[in-house]
Amino acid sequence: MIKIKDIGEFGLIDRITRKPKNKNNVLVGIGDDAAVVKPGKHLQVLTTDCLVEGDHFTREWFTPLQIGMKAIEINVSDIAAMGAIPSYALVSLGFPGDLDVEFVDEMYSGMWKVCDKYNIGIIGGNMTHSTQIFISITLLGEVEKKNLVLRSGAEIGDFIFVSGYLGNGRAGLRLFQENIEGFDGVKKRYLEPKARLDFALKNASSVNSMIDVSDGLAGDIKHICEQSGCGAVIYKDKIPITDEVKEIAEILGEDGYDYALYGGEDFELLYTVSPDKVSKIDGYLVGEITKDKKIKLFLNGKEQQIMDYSYDHFINPV
Amino acid sequence: MIKIKDIGEFGLIDRITRKPKNKNNVLVGIGDDAAVVKPGKHLQVLTTDCLVEGDHFTREWFTPLQIGMKAIEINVSDIAAMGAIPSYALVSLGFPGDLDVEFVDEMYSGMWKVCDKYNIGIIGGNMTHSTQIFISITLLGEVEKKNLVLRSGAEIGDFIFVSGYLGNGRAGLRLFQENIEGFDGVKKRYLEPKARLDFALKNASSVNSMIDVSDGLAGDIKHICEQSGCGAVIYKDKIPITDEVKEIAEILGEDGYDYALYGGEDFELLYTVSPDKVSKIDGYLVGEITKDKKIKLFLNGKEQQIMDYSYDHFINPV
Repeated sequence: MIKIKDIGEFGLIDRITRKPKNKNNVLVGIGDDAAVVKPGKHLQVLTTDCLVEGDHFTREWFTPLQIGMKAIEINVSDIAAMGAIPSYALVSLGFPGDLDVEFVDEMYSGMWKVCDKYNIGIIGGNMTHSTQIFISITLLGEVEKKNLVLRSGAEIGDFIFVSGYLGNGRAGLRLFQENIEGFDGVKKRYLEPKARLDFALKNASSVNSMIDVSDGLAGDIKHICEQSGCGAVIYKDKIPITDEVKEIAEILGEDGYDYALYGGEDFELLYTVSPDKVSKIDGYLVGEITKDKKIKLFLNGKEQQIMDYSYDHFINPV
Repeated sequence: MIKIKDIGEFGLIDRITRKPKNKNNVLVGIGDDAAVVKPGKHLQVLTTDCLVEGDHFTREWFTPLQIGMKAIEINVSDIAAMGAIPSYALVSLGFPGDLDVEFVDEMYSGMWKVCDKYNIGIIGGNMTHSTQIFISITLLGEVEKKNLVLRSGAEIGDFIFVSGYLGNGRAGLRLFQENIEGFDGVKKRYLEPKARLDFALKNASSVNSMIDVSDGLAGDIKHICEQSGCGAVIYKDKIPITDEVKEIAEILGEDGYDYALYGGEDFELLYTVSPDKVSKIDGYLVGEITKDKKIKLFLNGKEQQIMDYSYDHFINPV
């Protein structure tokens, strides 16, 4: 096996440099001090998110292809949550010199696969030596002003929706952590999350606020409420979770709804909608925006305890 | 001392979120899924560079303030080498939970200090848990098409210039590695490198190609030659190095010119100029662009051996 230290940074750059497809606005891609692109017509959105070995993935659970795919998908999820269309990515990587070059090749294949799906051009990057593998992606996108959706746009009386089933992210993680066989579908959704870009673009113009569910429903609705100056009521029994997620939680003596509320890494969308637009909207109604600035959880009309908690890698490393 | 794990990611975000100054084009900064900016009129340039503890800095040698300053300066250096003006930064950080919060505060003070100097707005970022500290910056900038300078623009017969003294980066590193007292000026230049942005903007319209000297003169002229399809002759005795750098090299039984040629981290600019524009140009003439695609080194009319080498963290970790 060829190791990274055998070919060095420049050998590696040659292997992973590929001209972005369908990107006529890219004047200069990888290979100069900086990339050069023509300015877009619309507003530009910019986000950055990172995967670190040990915290966000392990090489036991994830293939290099899946790591590359996930690194791009989680950033697309942030762009989607703005109602925007992704355009360009810059990739900042760190890995040890004794890593197989094949690992990097495969990881890039994963990034390219997802970038091709969304028509994203990888226009720049940086590679550096580190003891722990990390992949930090900066993703840019474009949005027409009328489609821009912020966390701060929720209004009192809005209904709260999610775009799909929650709890898969945490359920998948728990399956790997506890070495449980089966549940391949849940495992795959954890290993290969998909950003809800199409869903976001279809519904963006009808929603008042939006965020992607990366910290868990409880934490993410809190972000919306804090920025919108409001509170929320969540109806626990309305939270869409699959029977499989319930079963996994039961096996482990845990609660599937806790996976949805506090688990994170679902990469579904959480959004609020004015009552008059509810008929236009796809998704699952899970609650309402309130004037009272607290986040409350109800089950069958009774208030339940809700934790002020969302996933925090510093406080709860895997 | 408060540790990062005591306050978590969100506690940390509150501490380091600051509204960008003089940035009317920033509609949304830190705090949403992505930042939102108005598109610029001119071409956009984008670069990303990273500092990793152990490879690019140690906490023994660098203060947190200096780490933050350097993280921004090295990216500004790349933007400057395009003839562009920096505008926005996104900051992706990894650190262990038992790091003092004060470290992050100080590091951000360093980033803000340099960002204020260049009028850069930090509009987004990400913080994650890692065992090794890393700071990955994506820096954007803007350039009028007529001022854009690429590595690929060198022409046969161009004179090769550098914007200032070389070898300081490596000399400073060697002082710390070998625990040598004194030479405070050289140490400071290593700890607090400055991008040559003003120099670049003043001279960009008169040069054919440009790169910043981050890998060493030999490696960086090679980048220009490879992309321009030409070669170069470097006159060793013309390379500007200080008496201090020579002295440091001598103490260590090394060659100060090797520091300049193969050391890197000088963050001066290396550029090529047509003979008819030489009179307009600032800097030090160090060689000529040739048709013969080799890189040659001459001293007093005699060809010297030049190594096909530039600093590579994978092959030569600190």
